[in-house]
Parts: sequence; structure tokens; C-alpha cells
Amino acid sequence: MPKFIFSNIIGSFVFSENYKLVDGLLFKDIGQYKDKNVYEEKLFKKHGKLEVPKDKDLYDILLLFKDKKYFSQFYKKNLEITKNSIRSSVNNDALIIQTISSIDEIDKTINLLIKRLRDWYSLYNPEISNKIKDHEKFVSLIIKKSKSQLLKELNIDEKDAMGADLKENDASTILLLATQINNFLKLESHYENYLKQLEKGTCPNFMEVAGVTIAAKLIRHAGSLKRLVEMPASTIQILGAEKALFRHMRNKRRNRPPKHGLIHEHQLVQKSKAKMHGKVARALADKLSIAVKIDYFKGKFIGDKLKKELVDKFKIQY
Amino acid sequence: MPKFIFSNIIGSFVFSENYKLVDGLLFKDIGQYKDKNVYEEKLFKKHGKLEVPKDKDLYDILLLFKDKKYFSQFYKKNLEITKNSIRSSVNNDALIIQTISSIDEIDKTINLLIKRLRDWYSLYNPEISNKIKDHEKFVSLIIKKSKSQLLKELNIDEKDAMGADLKENDASTILLLATQINNFLKLESHYENYLKQLEKGTCPNFMEVAGVTIAAKLIRHAGSLKRLVEMPASTIQILGAEKALFRHMRNKRRNRPPKHGLIHEHQLVQKSKAKMHGKVARALADKLSIAVKIDYFKGKFIGDKLKKELVDKFKIQY
Repeated sequence: MPKFIFSNIIGSFVFSENYKLVDGLLFKDIGQYKDKNVYEEKLFKKHGKLEVPKDKDLYDILLLFKDKKYFSQFYKKNLEITKNSIRSSVNNDALIIQTISSIDEIDKTINLLIKRLRDWYSLYNPEISNKIKDHEKFVSLIIKKSKSQLLKELNIDEKDAMGADLKENDASTILLLATQINNFLKLESHYENYLKQLEKGTCPNFMEVAGVTIAAKLIRHAGSLKRLVEMPASTIQILGAEKALFRHMRNKRRNRPPKHGLIHEHQLVQKSKAKMHGKVARALADKLSIAVKIDYFKGKFIGDKLKKELVDKFKIQY
Repeated sequence: MPKFIFSNIIGSFVFSENYKLVDGLLFKDIGQYKDKNVYEEKLFKKHGKLEVPKDKDLYDILLLFKDKKYFSQFYKKNLEITKNSIRSSVNNDALIIQTISSIDEIDKTINLLIKRLRDWYSLYNPEISNKIKDHEKFVSLIIKKSKSQLLKELNIDEKDAMGADLKENDASTILLLATQINNFLKLESHYENYLKQLEKGTCPNFMEVAGVTIAAKLIRHAGSLKRLVEMPASTIQILGAEKALFRHMRNKRRNRPPKHGLIHEHQLVQKSKAKMHGKVARALADKLSIAVKIDYFKGKFIGDKLKKELVDKFKIQY
């Protein structure tokens, strides 16, 4: 007599009172497992009243599935589930995190290489490197203009210039590095734009209040938008200042709690007076916490209003 | 009566017994100072016997030049000398040092960015990053071939692939980074070639024995080819192992002297047995010391012979 009904990822099964397999429907793919109610319904119709096993009954039925003949099916279905969840875990959050990390590393790269370029180019034309402190301007100038053009613009007689007269090949070899750095500068600004587009789609309110870069860094630090939603505003406030927080927790008397973490870089904090930093950071974190929740639950765009409230409150434009 | 003759960078001068200026020739540029004998000769012809001031006479004559009216001339001439010596200090050594440093930094950069690229690309197509460990191959493959092409080549059903289905724009944004890394790989190999050309011109013997990279690193560490020439072979042997050397000097009993510095990376050392390292390093340093001297004094090319002697002695090809 059929008595129990039991479903797992490989199918829905009917067992008799003494745990003999009476009937069953195998699932073809993991989609059918999700609709297992439909298949259980079919078995109910065929066999009448069935109960879901509990306690010892469940234990004994589970033991049956330890049989090796089920292994390959379990393996296949499990793999499918895992792959599916990996695939679906990639969303815009993940892209935001990768993009901000790439920007960080491209930035590091550019700084490293520009130092080298200035050093190298100074053998050839030291006056220019000294006069033009801005990196981007320096790189694009030396690519566009020749040494004699540049010296003329700085009103330096070529006879008085301190640089060596390098051969054509030696000079152009230096400029290859400049060209590469220039390409990297372009890539960086392209990625900054792309990051903005991603955030506009995923978290427009959060971006509006936090700014593109800080929004991305907060998401990266939390791990995902979802985890950021689950955090109280006070945690968002000190996200990134974990070291200072634990220092405070170890020795409360000597070390004060941190006032801000990543949001320290925010214009609103930067432009306010030092003694106001804590207050500003708290207000900002409150608004960020509201904004990220609206974004996660696909609410309307009120980022501009949230931002205006902060601007009005502290009389600081950003 | 004219009695003394005295030259400095601004001219040649004749003074009377009581240090009055009698006659003088001013130098127009620093080239004339180098030919000061010619000008002094002219003054000898005009004034007959003159002596070079010594002791108190020299002191008093020098005092005369403390007059402010000479300051601008001294300033101009000194600047000219400094600029000249800066200009002439740039030789191939300096270019070799800059080139090897650039290669080092480009290498660091590539490693940093490839890690990021693999991370990012794995959201989209994780199977490829896992299969292809070689960085250069990985970068050029993902630029050339689409995700579905790559999966087909690895015999993976697109349905089973774990990567997310990114939008066209998201996927192509990742590949921009790959393209930049590829350009950097090309630049690196271009610079390696350029370095070889520089060394062929400056230190062909040294390059032949040391290898292109180690030759450049030794020159960088010493500061110039000239300083390398002045070093004994035993110093070249441990160049780059200063830390170990000073550790040894502080505590001779506990710390043995280093066997090798930068030349530890040399194929001859790498391919020999550990207990032979010291012996090999010493022999190698001897040959390097000979080679660098021949190069500095523009001797003939015998690098191949020096290398062969090492190869024959230790029965190790490199």
C-alpha cells in the first residue's frame, strides 16, 4: 500500500509503509525540481492520500537514496544547481566591484610609470619635467611636441638646455612609454564613465548621495548591494575603519571610536570643519542607508532630494 | 710692473707686485677656459716673465675677485660648466639604467593587471582562465576569440558553462583591459630588444658573459660602467647582496659571507649544483670583471671566448 510521498532534486517518489519504492517521477532538469508541486500533485491524484515522512520514516527513506545507483544522478543535478547559482550570482554589483578595482590598479600603474617616464625623459629634456607638474598635461605635451618646440615655448635657448642630445631612436623609444601611459589615462576615464553607467542602472539613489567612486568602494567593502542594505547606518558610517574600531574596542579609554571610514573621502566631510566631521558623517550615513534600501527594493529616484537635504543642513555644496 | 699671471673661469689676468690689475683677457665661453694656455701664452708674450702667484700672493689676488662686479660673470660661467657636465653625463649607461628600470616596472604592472583581468573575465567565462595558465597566451586568446569559440575549443557545452551571460557592452569593456595589457607585453619585448642594442654598443663583452638583463642590473647597481670597472671581481660577485654582507660583518660566526648577489640569477649559477654555487659565482665574476674592463677601454670582442671558457670549465651550457 502506498503511504509516503518524498521529493528530492532527482525526482518525486512514492513509498509503501515498509519503505518499498512504489512509484516515482524523475526530474529532467533543475527547473522541474522547482515545480515539484506539479509532479507531487500528479502522484497524489494517482495514489490518493499520501503523507510526507517524518522522523524515523524520513530517516529510513533517506537511507534508501544512499544506494550507489542514485549517485550519478545526484552528482549531475548538484552540479547543475551549483553552476546555476554561480551564473546567477554575477550581477551588476560584481561588475561594479571589478570596475572600481580595475580603476584603482590602473591608477597605481599610471603613477608608477609616470615617475619612471619623468626620470627617463629628464635625461633628454629636464626643463619640461620640472615646469609641468600635472601628469596628464606632461604626458600629452611630450607626445605632441618636439624638444625644440617645447624649449621655445618655455623661452629657453636650445644652447642653454641641460638635456643630452639623444639620437632620434633613443628619444622615440622614451616616447613609446609616454604613449602607453596616455592610453592608460584614456582607459581610466573610460572605466570611470562605465562605472557611472553601471551605478545609474543598479543604485541611482545611492550614487547620487555618495558619489560614483565612494558608492563603488562601499559596495566593494560590503561585498554586495544586498549586504549593504542589511547594515545599519552606523555601520555604513565606519565601513573601512575596522582597524580603528577594533583598536577602540580593545582599549576604550585610550582610543576613541572612529568617526568615519570610507566616507571620510566624501566632499561633504572634506569640506566641513574638523570638529563637525563626526556629525556630518552620521547624517551622510543615514541618507546613504535610506538611498541604498530604495535602490535595492527598486523604489523611485529621490537621490536629488536626499542630497539637497544634506546640502541645506550643512550649507556645503557638493 | 706686471709680475703675476692668474687664470680662472672668467679670464686670464695680469697683476702688478702690489696686486693691481694690469691686463687681462676675458673668456667668451667655457671652451676658451679649457684652452686657457693659449691665452696665457699671449699675455706672456706681451709682458715678458710672469709668475703664478702662491701662498699670500694667491690669497690676496683671490680676494680681489670677491668684488661684486665679477659675480654675474662667475654665475654665468659656473652655470655653463654645470649644464655642460650634466649634458655630457648622459651616456648609454644612463639609458641602459632607465631601460632596465622601465622593464622592471612594466613587468610589475603587467602582473598586477593580469590578476585583475583574470578575476574580472572569470565572471564571464571562468573555464578559460582556469585552463590557460600562461599569461600572454590567455590575454591574446580572449582578445582574438569569442566566448562561444573558446568554449567550443575546450569541448564545453555552452549550457554547462558557469560564466554569466554578460551584455555585449559589459563583455567588451573587460576586453579593453586585455588589449591594454597586450600592448604592454609588446612594449616590454620592444624594450628588451632596445636594451640589447644599447649594450651591444656600450659593453658587448660584458653582455655576452652576463646576459642582457643581468648586465643591465649590474650597471644599475654600480651606478655606471665606469664604477663597475673600478670594482674588484670579488665586489662584482656579491653586488646586490649588501644586506647579507653587512650581516656577516656584524657577526662573522653566525652569518657566513654571501656567495653571490645579482649574479645568482645567472644561468651558470642556476644550473649548477648548490654546493658549487660559490665556485661558479667566483669564476663568473672574474670573467665579468675582465669583460667590463675590455669594454670600457674599447678593446676587441672576446666575449665569446670568455663565455666558452666558463662553459667548458663547468660543463654547463648557457
